Amino acid sequence: MFFGWFLGRANPSDPKPDSTAPLDTVKPPQHNVSQSNMQAAWVDFCDIVGAENVSTSADDAHAHAGSDWSSHDNPASEVPFAVVRPSTTEQVSRLMKVCHIRRIPVTAYSGGTSLEGHFAATRGGVCIDFCHMDKVVALHKEDLDVVVQPAVGWEHLNEELAEHGLFFPPDPGPGAMIGGMVGTGCSGTNAYRYGTMREWVLSLTVVLADGTVIRTRQRPRKSSAGYDLTRAFIGSEGTLGLVTEATLKVTPRPASTSVAVCAFPSVRHAADCVYRVVGAGVPIAAVEILDDEQMRCINQAGATRRHWAQSPTLFFKFAGTPQSVKEHVAMVQRLAKGAGSKSFEFARSDAEAEELWSARKDALWSVMAQKRSHEDRMWTTDVAVPISKLPTIVEETKRDMKESGLMGTIVGHVGDGNFHSILIYNEKERHTAEEVVHRMVKRAIELEGTATGEHGVGLVKRDYLEHEVGLATVDAMRKLKLAFDPLCLLNCDKIVRMEPPKKGEVQEW
Amino acid sequence: MFFGWFLGRANPSDPKPDSTAPLDTVKPPQHNVSQSNMQAAWVDFCDIVGAENVSTSADDAHAHAGSDWSSHDNPASEVPFAVVRPSTTEQVSRLMKVCHIRRIPVTAYSGGTSLEGHFAATRGGVCIDFCHMDKVVALHKEDLDVVVQPAVGWEHLNEELAEHGLFFPPDPGPGAMIGGMVGTGCSGTNAYRYGTMREWVLSLTVVLADGTVIRTRQRPRKSSAGYDLTRAFIGSEGTLGLVTEATLKVTPRPASTSVAVCAFPSVRHAADCVYRVVGAGVPIAAVEILDDEQMRCINQAGATRRHWAQSPTLFFKFAGTPQSVKEHVAMVQRLAKGAGSKSFEFARSDAEAEELWSARKDALWSVMAQKRSHEDRMWTTDVAVPISKLPTIVEETKRDMKESGLMGTIVGHVGDGNFHSILIYNEKERHTAEEVVHRMVKRAIELEGTATGEHGVGLVKRDYLEHEVGLATVDAMRKLKLAFDPLCLLNCDKIVRMEPPKKGEVQEW
Repeated sequence: MFFGWFLGRANPSDPKPDSTAPLDTVKPPQHNVSQSNMQAAWVDFCDIVGAENVSTSADDAHAHAGSDWSSHDNPASEVPFAVVRPSTTEQVSRLMKVCHIRRIPVTAYSGGTSLEGHFAATRGGVCIDFCHMDKVVALHKEDLDVVVQPAVGWEHLNEELAEHGLFFPPDPGPGAMIGGMVGTGCSGTNAYRYGTMREWVLSLTVVLADGTVIRTRQRPRKSSAGYDLTRAFIGSEGTLGLVTEATLKVTPRPASTSVAVCAFPSVRHAADCVYRVVGAGVPIAAVEILDDEQMRCINQAGATRRHWAQSPTLFFKFAGTPQSVKEHVAMVQRLAKGAGSKSFEFARSDAEAEELWSARKDALWSVMAQKRSHEDRMWTTDVAVPISKLPTIVEETKRDMKESGLMGTIVGHVGDGNFHSILIYNEKERHTAEEVVHRMVKRAIELEGTATGEHGVGLVKRDYLEHEVGLATVDAMRKLKLAFDPLCLLNCDKIVRMEPPKKGEVQEW
Repeated sequence: MFFGWFLGRANPSDPKPDSTAPLDTVKPPQHNVSQSNMQAAWVDFCDIVGAENVSTSADDAHAHAGSDWSSHDNPASEVPFAVVRPSTTEQVSRLMKVCHIRRIPVTAYSGGTSLEGHFAATRGGVCIDFCHMDKVVALHKEDLDVVVQPAVGWEHLNEELAEHGLFFPPDPGPGAMIGGMVGTGCSGTNAYRYGTMREWVLSLTVVLADGTVIRTRQRPRKSSAGYDLTRAFIGSEGTLGLVTEATLKVTPRPASTSVAVCAFPSVRHAADCVYRVVGAGVPIAAVEILDDEQMRCINQAGATRRHWAQSPTLFFKFAGTPQSVKEHVAMVQRLAKGAGSKSFEFARSDAEAEELWSARKDALWSVMAQKRSHEDRMWTTDVAVPISKLPTIVEETKRDMKESGLMGTIVGHVGDGNFHSILIYNEKERHTAEEVVHRMVKRAIELEGTATGEHGVGLVKRDYLEHEVGLATVDAMRKLKLAFDPLCLLNCDKIVRMEPPKKGEVQEW
């Protein structure tokens, strides 16, 4: 399934295809980011949102183009000219009409927690920051749905829902907001039981590239009416439209929850335990794997009260009625023993459950504490493979990390075949880190997996898509992009290229 | 949100929009179904699949354009010129290349169980019948996925999976096959617990309108890489591409299942019971409602051994470990009592569970048994609303059916706010039936619901989309259609119109 790298169509004299848009058939985007056009647009923007909501400060521009935790190496050129802060869907529509007429590229910004260069402004233009659109618009408790604006954070939302005995399962990184969560098709530890963002959005209000406002669906929990535009926008990384409102499903909080922690001699033993649990149909709420290095970091950081065995460790979450939780814990304990567990601890109270789970929660911070100096950076990235391939790729990636000399840990949503590697590197080690990540992604794709299970491709992983799904599929994706955004105004250069790469820009496969 | 009926853009002098395709901006499809073109194509088809797999018999054509249980009133003109039966993706690709060059419209056919005129050939052309592509290609038991061809039936698939302790949850009508199940984005009684077809397809191999073959994804259970093309094709009713292979998730069969049946004084009491159960987070596997008329039909048909109370009745399915199933049954019994249940029976054995559930299973056949003569037809259709609106719409629809003088029942996936009405009518009563269904759909849309929860719009409900999601959203759908199929070869006129309706063709809103 691997095609030539950017060779385009096999035979350029073939008739132009109708259903896909190969790179050699599209014209490079023609934007206008001239000083005079941007200044004229600035006047229009001020008219729409008020001058106080149009910023051209360099700091603001810089803060809206990248972050310390992004793995994308941000050239200084990749910043927007202005940051605009609208308050309503109607304002966003008017802003897009201006950008459409003036051919100004646009990036969208909500929580800014994405990791792969998703909101870097590759061609200047304007960043639309949704910070003023941060309201929970309506809770339909009896219908189990909630209507929110894009800058509502999932943690804040869950605080509000908790008062009604409800929750919203997708749990990406702290600080993430609904707009970006839609953009990346995110998930988290709850995905094993509850599914990803794709399963929890009922409807989206979207402003398209020409300013047209659409609402993808009404509020029923099921619909077979028309194309699934909702899902077309989920995971589209702001390249097809700007989400200005989302109707999300919510669900009752389980009556009872618990946590168990279980150490194994090897990743393979731990994975075997997970297969047994999944195969036996035990309805666990989550299962996470932390490798030995990660457990060592947690011990060294000292954030949790206990000292952990420095072995690959599974963290199980249980949820349900009190009696079923008890039953499931006992079943998992038995299955873990059969798979060769070295220890099995389970919580006897909510406080104990929180204490046990805190190790999983603090995984990222405990690695951060390993930084040798303030010049060190973190590279957090993820891949996913069919679940039976997980031990193979984790073992090989651990070996590779060790051989590279970089400090790195692995934390995985093991029930989904999805895991993260967290690397520490400094500027001198950047190339080494890039190579480790590149080999990890290559391994995942060759094991019939994906370059990213829940982070999105951004700029860093965009060029892997062709290896993952094939050239024709990428060309079909480009056709979709051009259908909704023919001028490539929205987060241009993300997901699919619109111009061939420069020499040396793409790593050898 | 309700726009003028086919008025097109508010002001036709506005610039042509970039992100949507309003009806007044598109040209009518230019197909070539002339006798000479079709005869030349016939030679090409024979070359690709062999003459024995190209049928031009009138019976074949007729059988591939509609069915007795479809609510679409099939004009005799809406039949294909030929039925072609390929065996491989490559053959399908070659067939589409011929149709693309010759501009011949194409409909796809697998199980033929859809209900709203989905596979009626509106413009002649060719029907591609996937009957030879009926293999289970690969079962990856350890990854919990299975690769199948489009003419695999879900019942047959589940028989094969059962040997491995696995199952595939979507359970539409008997006889449905994967190709059509993808096309309609179907579901069934298991959707409440397991979700719909959209949640159970990992990847699709699709032949596009110009013959290009794409595979939407590899096999990981989670991916955030690129646009979600998989979901773009699910529910697209064969209008964007022809599915030639699907990789489906499967899941372990629950260790234990049971059934409980519970009668209520009214639909509202029954719905109240469901809210209590859902709100308490009891993880039931399914909950179905059958109305008093439906229970009467089941009694009269005598297919089940017992005599049922002729009241609105809930059928609960439980699945899990033996102990949790017991616990959930007890919880539901208590909650049902609180909601005013008149009776509560639960199965003490698998045989009893089957006996209880058989009433739900026989619902459709028991209504069929009420036919007054062989001229009577059945009209099975569905809508869905936010769950709290279900009692209102069911009550109003029952009243309306009664006043219409037609015999009709209601069967609902009450946990999803989705229900079916089954009407009996003869040719003289067709208009009355149409009116009853029209008012039911209007009610659902006005209650923030959908014209169809799981059947798809086909031809019968296509023109409701504009009321349900708004004109701009339909125009965005048309843009999507034209991106992948600019010549409108694939199931033309479905989901979105490509030409304005004739006078009187669309019912008054």
